[in-house]
Amino acid sequence: MIKAGIMGATGYAGEMLAWILYKHPEVEVDFYNSHNYANFQLNQLYGNYNGFIEDKCVDLEEAMARIDNIDVLFIALPNGKSFELTKKALAQGVKVIDLGADYRLNSKDEYEEWYGIKHELPPLLENAVYGITELKRDEIQKSNLIANPGCYPTATILGLAPLLKNKLIETSSVIVDAKSGVSGAGRSANISSLFTECNESIKAYGVATHRHTPEIEQELSKLAEEKLFISFTPHLVPMNRGILSTCYSNLKKSLSTEEILEIYKDFYKDSYFVKITDGIPETRWVKGSNLCHISARVDPRTNRVIVISAIDNLVKGAAGQAVQNMNVMFGFKETAGLDFIAMAP
Amino acid sequence: MIKAGIMGATGYAGEMLAWILYKHPEVEVDFYNSHNYANFQLNQLYGNYNGFIEDKCVDLEEAMARIDNIDVLFIALPNGKSFELTKKALAQGVKVIDLGADYRLNSKDEYEEWYGIKHELPPLLENAVYGITELKRDEIQKSNLIANPGCYPTATILGLAPLLKNKLIETSSVIVDAKSGVSGAGRSANISSLFTECNESIKAYGVATHRHTPEIEQELSKLAEEKLFISFTPHLVPMNRGILSTCYSNLKKSLSTEEILEIYKDFYKDSYFVKITDGIPETRWVKGSNLCHISARVDPRTNRVIVISAIDNLVKGAAGQAVQNMNVMFGFKETAGLDFIAMAP
Amino acid sequence: MIKAGIMGATGYAGEMLAWILYKHPEVEVDFYNSHNYANFQLNQLYGNYNGFIEDKCVDLEEAMARIDNIDVLFIALPNGKSFELTKKALAQGVKVIDLGADYRLNSKDEYEEWYGIKHELPPLLENAVYGITELKRDEIQKSNLIANPGCYPTATILGLAPLLKNKLIETSSVIVDAKSGVSGAGRSANISSLFTECNESIKAYGVATHRHTPEIEQELSKLAEEKLFISFTPHLVPMNRGILSTCYSNLKKSLSTEEILEIYKDFYKDSYFVKITDGIPETRWVKGSNLCHISARVDPRTNRVIVISAIDNLVKGAAGQAVQNMNVMFGFKETAGLDFIAMAP
Amino acid sequence: MIKAGIMGATGYAGEMLAWILYKHPEVEVDFYNSHNYANFQLNQLYGNYNGFIEDKCVDLEEAMARIDNIDVLFIALPNGKSFELTKKALAQGVKVIDLGADYRLNSKDEYEEWYGIKHELPPLLENAVYGITELKRDEIQKSNLIANPGCYPTATILGLAPLLKNKLIETSSVIVDAKSGVSGAGRSANISSLFTECNESIKAYGVATHRHTPEIEQELSKLAEEKLFISFTPHLVPMNRGILSTCYSNLKKSLSTEEILEIYKDFYKDSYFVKITDGIPETRWVKGSNLCHISARVDPRTNRVIVISAIDNLVKGAAGQAVQNMNVMFGFKETAGLDFIAMAP
Repeated sequence: MIKAGIMGATGYAGEMLAWILYKHPEVEVDFYNSHNYANFQLNQLYGNYNGFIEDKCVDLEEAMARIDNIDVLFIALPNGKSFELTKKALAQGVKVIDLGADYRLNSKDEYEEWYGIKHELPPLLENAVYGITELKRDEIQKSNLIANPGCYPTATILGLAPLLKNKLIETSSVIVDAKSGVSGAGRSANISSLFTECNESIKAYGVATHRHTPEIEQELSKLAEEKLFISFTPHLVPMNRGILSTCYSNLKKSLSTEEILEIYKDFYKDSYFVKITDGIPETRWVKGSNLCHISARVDPRTNRVIVISAIDNLVKGAAGQAVQNMNVMFGFKETAGLDFIAMAP
Repeated sequence: MIKAGIMGATGYAGEMLAWILYKHPEVEVDFYNSHNYANFQLNQLYGNYNGFIEDKCVDLEEAMARIDNIDVLFIALPNGKSFELTKKALAQGVKVIDLGADYRLNSKDEYEEWYGIKHELPPLLENAVYGITELKRDEIQKSNLIANPGCYPTATILGLAPLLKNKLIETSSVIVDAKSGVSGAGRSANISSLFTECNESIKAYGVATHRHTPEIEQELSKLAEEKLFISFTPHLVPMNRGILSTCYSNLKKSLSTEEILEIYKDFYKDSYFVKITDGIPETRWVKGSNLCHISARVDPRTNRVIVISAIDNLVKGAAGQAVQNMNVMFGFKETAGLDFIAMAP
Repeated sequence: MIKAGIMGATGYAGEMLAWILYKHPEVEVDFYNSHNYANFQLNQLYGNYNGFIEDKCVDLEEAMARIDNIDVLFIALPNGKSFELTKKALAQGVKVIDLGADYRLNSKDEYEEWYGIKHELPPLLENAVYGITELKRDEIQKSNLIANPGCYPTATILGLAPLLKNKLIETSSVIVDAKSGVSGAGRSANISSLFTECNESIKAYGVATHRHTPEIEQELSKLAEEKLFISFTPHLVPMNRGILSTCYSNLKKSLSTEEILEIYKDFYKDSYFVKITDGIPETRWVKGSNLCHISARVDPRTNRVIVISAIDNLVKGAAGQAVQNMNVMFGFKETAGLDFIAMAP
Repeated sequence: MIKAGIMGATGYAGEMLAWILYKHPEVEVDFYNSHNYANFQLNQLYGNYNGFIEDKCVDLEEAMARIDNIDVLFIALPNGKSFELTKKALAQGVKVIDLGADYRLNSKDEYEEWYGIKHELPPLLENAVYGITELKRDEIQKSNLIANPGCYPTATILGLAPLLKNKLIETSSVIVDAKSGVSGAGRSANISSLFTECNESIKAYGVATHRHTPEIEQELSKLAEEKLFISFTPHLVPMNRGILSTCYSNLKKSLSTEEILEIYKDFYKDSYFVKITDGIPETRWVKGSNLCHISARVDPRTNRVIVISAIDNLVKGAAGQAVQNMNVMFGFKETAGLDFIAMAP
């Protein structure tokens, strides 16, 4: 049993970490931290934990003090709030998995431009591993600092990796039209996240300006071995959870849907959590699980391939992948604590 | 490991049984039966099972033939369809858990009146145990035929049992105003269950005529040790899962909210799945779990007690309680395969 | 054409007033007031007004100054914020319709107890008319200050009035189980109103303590000509709009459902907006309209009558009834500006 | 006053026609037809019409007989069911507006290929006008047979027309990612349209094969004055109404967002129902209205323009545009009966 600390345990990603780790066979949670709800019990905010997780949340000061006791620190805080914690944890040999954006971009300048925050630990940008598990197991295993990918990037990079790695598409032609449930906006009291403002509507937002763009481009460029730019448009969908990423690109040569699906199945043959489906993915089939469903269709009329991938934004898109990365880092079974499947309906 | 068969595995209750038993440490599913989808793989209907449950569903004939192989038969079929199966299974020493209404009412006449179906096995009505687990563990343990309670009755009976058992309320004063998610209507192609017909609306239905009334009255009468009648009004709520039962009754003598809650905590002190909460229950906190949350408030202005209980209609209100009953019948740990908690949001 | 001012035009009730008055044949809106969004155009918050209502909202100071110009002032502000405005408006001969609770209760003490706010204009409590239009047309016509009823009270009082007026039920037996869409919570940035906190769940709240209780009791007592107390339990339903009020009471003598419905049809025969339906009301059929659907069922097993009424909380439960009251006050056709019906689905 | 008949008045598009025409100042409905609900009153299916539209639906035979009495026939039937009706109506000088696909495609072969139905009136394909009102007012005015556009095509064609007409984009680069509410699937008892199958999920469907593709391409090709092919992917969103069309294309030369928006405002300056918005469109702002909101963003990093348009699929995408076309055909004010705006929330 290792010991973990969770920073930001009352936000949706942090709370999802608590949910997963509560049942994890190899981990004991040492502390749950909360800024707004320090001294509240977790079940006072999340009634599902009544009788289960009734621990009191600790404030930042106490969390800092407890870093000594733990083996791994999960940070689910707003961007720019991880620096001091990460520094201390790494100094004491505690592995860090950051669910925010602070270590995702390799370039300090790019981070500061897209996030408008001064980066206080630029040297770490070289050490941190972008933790999209299926594509980086070896690096993750050796790392002590994981930049856990964003939700949109996870769905999108897993969806496009086989095409780019195999150099099947024109790199300038990639368009990503993504759709997310409302939990992606977090548990903050914003009018735009009210039930009455989200329900019965769909909208695009952050058109051509969303912060997940550079990390998607960074990782896709590595796969393609050339710098590429994409168009990325996120949409808000009236549902709690789920991301669907619909990705368009032009094939370099003519390939059938069947051939594409074969390539995908082969690419992910050793990845338990990625399922290449014959049917078109729907977010409900992965909801509440760490799975990623991917399928593709070739449109011979335009010679485009349309790849569709679905994940749960809070699990594979956040807490689940974080635990998956932890499993790899500590040499646990990759699926430990994560082998639950979606419940329907 | 025992072996189980599931009749009606493609309906929502049957499919939920499949979900639970897939992870149950003591059970292996021998066959999944479906009438409309015989020869379909379960994952063709339920994409969440891609890579997990890819078994082909068998038709009635094959299911009948396989009864020899199994230890327990779960029946999740329309009312009136269980008779032949039950007869055969019991004859071969296979325990039966019926999720329908065929064995819930002790009186053949009452069954035929409320359901409009001729009862073909009236002698079994005496042997069958009404499987509301927390209240009948001893009987269930000895039984080979369980009538698994309806979803509304489960929430309501658990909610009112402590009051009636302790003779705290006027038995003629009980009013049950219940609310259910749409999965309670099953997976049938009815216009009234369309998204566009249910969404953004709430309605009552079956006012003063709903079929769950007699089984609630039967079990409450046993607890009260006198024949009682209730008013029961179900409502349809635009959500997938969940039942909230709001129960009103007049206190015989003055009691405080605190005293009532103490009585409840004591009553359910040995019941893992029933949580008496200080806060008012919400269905989201039990969604996808076998838990029942109950709380109560005394209204001193009217000397009424208002009890509110929440369950997941497909788990504690159907498949979960069925497995809980199986656990008791076979001497497994009562929580085996059922120790998952709700995921939020 | 008369001129109107709307205080609190960017909240849901105020905005609904703007929507209705924009098309009203007899009214011109002189100003839209907003506290948080002064100097914003209404269409910046509500995109449906793009190309239609693009007026800038004015702050309190400017609104106060413009009271001279108007004939009627609608106040849709938080409780306790109406006093100064009402005083000034009435002094200048401007009629006032307050959508909050400041003038609903006849007793200053009761107001201060339930709302925890000091009442600054107690003499007005005698002059104000509780504006449930169908029951008080004569008083409303003569009044210059209307206390517009709450949403739950509107549905409930209209639902129970025929029974109490005709002395058909035991006055101590009334139980009101009401359900509301989320817009009833207003457009405030509260975590409890987030999409992710309301969606896929139902809960009761304010059990035995909700502030609408005293106004319901006050008006029902007048109808019954005796002081009565009720049990009132509101519930939150995952939908934008709508209130369903399910009301239980014991009949004094035996009556059939048909007889009850006849009594209701007669009672409301001159009320355009109240429809007595044979089928059980559903909120979707009145959504976005000023209509109230009511039906009833007698349960002969318990000799109870169950009355179910449905309204749109923002229209008949707020802005629509306010305009209906204005129409009566100014001698316009009662349906002026309000003759729109629900859209399905 | 002219007289209208509605074929298929109990489906969602037909029922929306009934809703609109009920208030239309120039039209009286002579009959409502229904196949499945002949002899039912419209309010028995749609409770919103209680006290308003209580007419009995007539069957096909009676509808055919009544064609003599009417001036315009609206057909909202399944594809392939309009031929006999259209023939008879036109022969008697009755104008026809078909809301299905039977006259949308200019090519008989293309119709038969995409729809798998033999076209029985191929000569009409030359006479019929594709009724996207804003782009074809002159032709519509002179026509007696309107092929009312599909919902996805309406949003998409209005969204892309200014770019193609002005030859601003590469015609081979058009990708349309569209999202629809569930009412687009109609009021048929399909399992895939159940609340529990649609709620809390998003999916793509008909990827590279959806039947709206050829009519979009046909009309866009006319605008571009060259044959073009698009990629079109529809998605199902858990909401009742609304279509959002997100359209990607490569600019031929560099243009700013502001320049694009100016071009759009100029293009639609005489079109009451099209609003070019500075903010990104959301379906809630057009829900229940005949409006189309459009905005655009240039992504200078990729030199793509992203156009987003929003409509209500049942109004501007079906019944509203049909009435708008009728208004043009009969010389009524184009906005007659259609000047209602969305209600929020």
